[in-house]
Amino acid sequence: MSDKPDSAIEPTNLLLASNKVDGTKVVTRDGASLGSVHSFMINKRTGQATYAVLSLGGFLGMGKSFYPLPFESLAYDHVADGYVVTIDKRLLEGGPSWASNAPEFNQAYADRVANYYGVAPVDLSL
Amino acid sequence: MSDKPDSAIEPTNLLLASNKVDGTKVVTRDGASLGSVHSFMINKRTGQATYAVLSLGGFLGMGKSFYPLPFESLAYDHVADGYVVTIDKRLLEGGPSWASNAPEFNQAYADRVANYYGVAPVDLSL
Repeated sequence: MSDKPDSAIEPTNLLLASNKVDGTKVVTRDGASLGSVHSFMINKRTGQATYAVLSLGGFLGMGKSFYPLPFESLAYDHVADGYVVTIDKRLLEGGPSWASNAPEFNQAYADRVANYYGVAPVDLSL
Repeated sequence: MSDKPDSAIEPTNLLLASNKVDGTKVVTRDGASLGSVHSFMINKRTGQATYAVLSLGGFLGMGKSFYPLPFESLAYDHVADGYVVTIDKRLLEGGPSWASNAPEFNQAYADRVANYYGVAPVDLSL
């Protein structure tokens, strides 16, 4: 046990139930609200969340849109109990997204997301 | 691309959205229905599902109960599009579980689950 103020935080906080992912807050590096997590895309075999789909509203006056990001782009902040995304907002706004019709999250789409954010592509073959 | 019948399976099948985890089927090694996945308990920092909470009904004539298992106890079967659990049913029935009041999934509880199934404990400290 530590004497730091954080010691009051229950260790259970490190686990997030899959049915509670939706709504987890997402902030920018300076702590400003960016939106929330809509869902994680989880590799069924390994159990690893490979993409996080952010729900962001209000860009350019439009309604809520969904932005898939490589999970490695998110940093969990246990004080905020949310995720910090350091991707520049303008880069994010130009990234793969959808408003009402979710795309099929297949290899081509996953590759597109990985390429856009400059991370290694994920092999989704079974 | 393979000529096997499985080649018709879309690669997208490897990803499971966190809001679709609930209801994923769970079968025994011989393919018999065992129940379904209720949720994954996900490490917020790494994005790794560390536990799967199974929803099993009908044991001993009782209602639905929830059984947390180390994620490594589950093997994804892409033909069944579900998980195979090879843990003996009697061992499972005697394992940590709850019916209506979910326990706090803290370090002590996680250790209890890990110990019961004989797997390495997971460090849940932040």
